[in-house]
Amino acid sequence: MSIYQQNLSIATHGRGTYHITDKMDELIRQSGIKTGLCHVFIHHTSASLIITENADPSVRQDLETIMQRLAPDGDPAYRHDYEGDDDMSGHVRCILTHTDLTIPVTRGQSALGTWQGLYLYEHRHGHFQRKLTVTIYGE
Amino acid sequence: MSIYQQNLSIATHGRGTYHITDKMDELIRQSGIKTGLCHVFIHHTSASLIITENADPSVRQDLETIMQRLAPDGDPAYRHDYEGDDDMSGHVRCILTHTDLTIPVTRGQSALGTWQGLYLYEHRHGHFQRKLTVTIYGE
Amino acid sequence: MSIYQQNLSIATHGRGTYHITDKMDELIRQSGIKTGLCHVFIHHTSASLIITENADPSVRQDLETIMQRLAPDGDPAYRHDYEGDDDMSGHVRCILTHTDLTIPVTRGQSALGTWQGLYLYEHRHGHFQRKLTVTIYGE
Repeated sequence: MSIYQQNLSIATHGRGTYHITDKMDELIRQSGIKTGLCHVFIHHTSASLIITENADPSVRQDLETIMQRLAPDGDPAYRHDYEGDDDMSGHVRCILTHTDLTIPVTRGQSALGTWQGLYLYEHRHGHFQRKLTVTIYGE
Repeated sequence: MSIYQQNLSIATHGRGTYHITDKMDELIRQSGIKTGLCHVFIHHTSASLIITENADPSVRQDLETIMQRLAPDGDPAYRHDYEGDDDMSGHVRCILTHTDLTIPVTRGQSALGTWQGLYLYEHRHGHFQRKLTVTIYGE
Repeated sequence: MSIYQQNLSIATHGRGTYHITDKMDELIRQSGIKTGLCHVFIHHTSASLIITENADPSVRQDLETIMQRLAPDGDPAYRHDYEGDDDMSGHVRCILTHTDLTIPVTRGQSALGTWQGLYLYEHRHGHFQRKLTVTIYGE
């Protein structure tokens, strides 16, 4: 077994989902790993990772509607609001979704299901440069 | 270290939890790995994975009650409803639970706690054949 | 690649977050792994793991406020309440957060972001001894 680790930097420009399946697949190709796993980690507490339906954009819009209910911006109950109304809601959304995901690698590519896409989910309204570490291992 | 990867196909017949600890343990035995990790991945966006209490079935019934509140079927706010009332709710439930889980392997078997069980959580009301990839690695 | 697996036991004394980044880093040092991954697993269904903001304690207080809404203690809808009002709510909180997390290891230490900390999240009000398995692998 061998292991390959690389950083990714993704520019975000406001809350929403950013499709990063292709960026992961490019690193899998570079790794030369044929059978194994690909681990993706995001180094932030107000942007996270999800795997969801990759075809109809309304899925991600509806997800946003639900997240706004589960962790509303500017909730008067929050004590932590240094960076604005999307500060604490962003932390909660990260905990309810994922900071790391691991995806099988089969025949040299990510083995996502037909309808699955990997997304960075930015929870803040500003512009950010988000750092990810991708680690691919196997044989 | 070595790595072993295998597919599983699980038939589901309606929303609910399906206990799959035994199927995972059988693959761990086949792998011959004694110390390592077992990664389980589900290739779908309306069925997911959870680890929860394995003794009292009412836990999974109560979980369903809570999930119905967090991501209700047929919510009028949803725009994505091509496949019915359980379409978008299924996607949200997947994001709130897990598409992949990794479990330690110790002395040649999964090291779940006494009360932990691994479940496939089907979110749709129909009948489906769900594909999983199990990857076991270690020594 | 090599692999190193070790148990941790953490004493909890009531609901809340317990910072365990240092304990993980100590095991990474012991492992001698320089580039790889560190997997942390908790063997319980009413205590879980989260990565969240490590600076302002009010983040974890606000998180508790939100969790109390999403999975209230003593909800009259619960059928599972053998061990009290925090029994079923604890199970739901575990499913909404994480039973396992994997963190990159870079230059012989965990590569958490500047503001990220690893926490055990105890959901029960009593005192417990919580068992974790930490598995570090790479080269």
